Amino acid sequence: MDTTTLSLHTGRLRKTVDITSYAAEFVHGRGDGLLSVFLPHATAGLAIMETGAGSEADLLDAVDDILPRDDRWQHRHGSRGHGADHVMPAFVSPSLTIPVESGRLLLGTWQSIVLVDPNADNPERRITLSWIPG
Amino acid sequence: MDTTTLSLHTGRLRKTVDITSYAAEFVHGRGDGLLSVFLPHATAGLAIMETGAGSEADLLDAVDDILPRDDRWQHRHGSRGHGADHVMPAFVSPSLTIPVESGRLLLGTWQSIVLVDPNADNPERRITLSWIPG
Amino acid sequence: MDTTTLSLHTGRLRKTVDITSYAAEFVHGRGDGLLSVFLPHATAGLAIMETGAGSEADLLDAVDDILPRDDRWQHRHGSRGHGADHVMPAFVSPSLTIPVESGRLLLGTWQSIVLVDPNADNPERRITLSWIPG
Repeated sequence: MDTTTLSLHTGRLRKTVDITSYAAEFVHGRGDGLLSVFLPHATAGLAIMETGAGSEADLLDAVDDILPRDDRWQHRHGSRGHGADHVMPAFVSPSLTIPVESGRLLLGTWQSIVLVDPNADNPERRITLSWIPG
Repeated sequence: MDTTTLSLHTGRLRKTVDITSYAAEFVHGRGDGLLSVFLPHATAGLAIMETGAGSEADLLDAVDDILPRDDRWQHRHGSRGHGADHVMPAFVSPSLTIPVESGRLLLGTWQSIVLVDPNADNPERRITLSWIPG
Repeated sequence: MDTTTLSLHTGRLRKTVDITSYAAEFVHGRGDGLLSVFLPHATAGLAIMETGAGSEADLLDAVDDILPRDDRWQHRHGSRGHGADHVMPAFVSPSLTIPVESGRLLLGTWQSIVLVDPNADNPERRITLSWIPG
């Protein structure tokens, strides 16, 4: 299997990062198969969504609304409410698969692959891209 | 890789569509492997759930409860609250994989594959089914 | 495709079960590829998360907060609020894929594979592990 690891500097802000271009480059020229996108971190997730029209901020707000950053969490260390970051990956999974045809991701027009990182305490993230032939 | 695209007319209602029979037909006779189900749209998702006993309506209600269709969304166009539709795929993913053995989906007795489409503005949807040999 | 089925006795309590060691053993010695983890049940899900520091209880509490166990559900049988269990898999999916390199799961340091079972009415669960060569 051909696997590569992206290293992303996400800094000390809660954020999303559009990684579509890295994924497109990774599968370019490979023919047909499946791209596995995997995030080896326990306090962030991956999403497929539209970027550039406000939905990234909407998503981070929704995560805070659904999993409030208050003192309810048993898992308690780091910033206040950080326990929420440990629950988010059950809902926003760290694992995605995307079909590829003729070296091209079969994403829709408005879909991008996005790292969703509500955790300001971790400034470096890795993402694994793996190729499974079809 | 063998890939086919379903075209579904979902009309102007928010709805779910059970696509299990299409998926079962696609893998029939193929032996062992993995079925990738992928939805190339940014305002709908896919779920594996029981159908026919009320859970489809329960799910659409839960989506509205979790992601309210009000004016909170920065991504704002179309119907009121449509920004919620752009956030939903982070939680209800457009990508699923299902193991297949001897040409049969390894779904449980009560599981169906369901398009979850809370967006009334988009009457046509496509879904990609891809076969990955095991 | 090589597939095995785990049988877990989850008893009459709502719970999570860390199945990482079973998955690691299943892929041990296999080389490169993809592990498909699939739960053939309609009232539970799978997550990748940290275990042992309180997040499992935090997750079950969050599920109850997001999908309240009250009388809102059309799908109504078994314990009060059981309709929520039928909606949860749309958010906490029963399907996961994890890349494998040299027979080792590419999980992060703090990631475990977890059965999330909020349904006290079903004391037995099965999970399918399938190997897709890379």
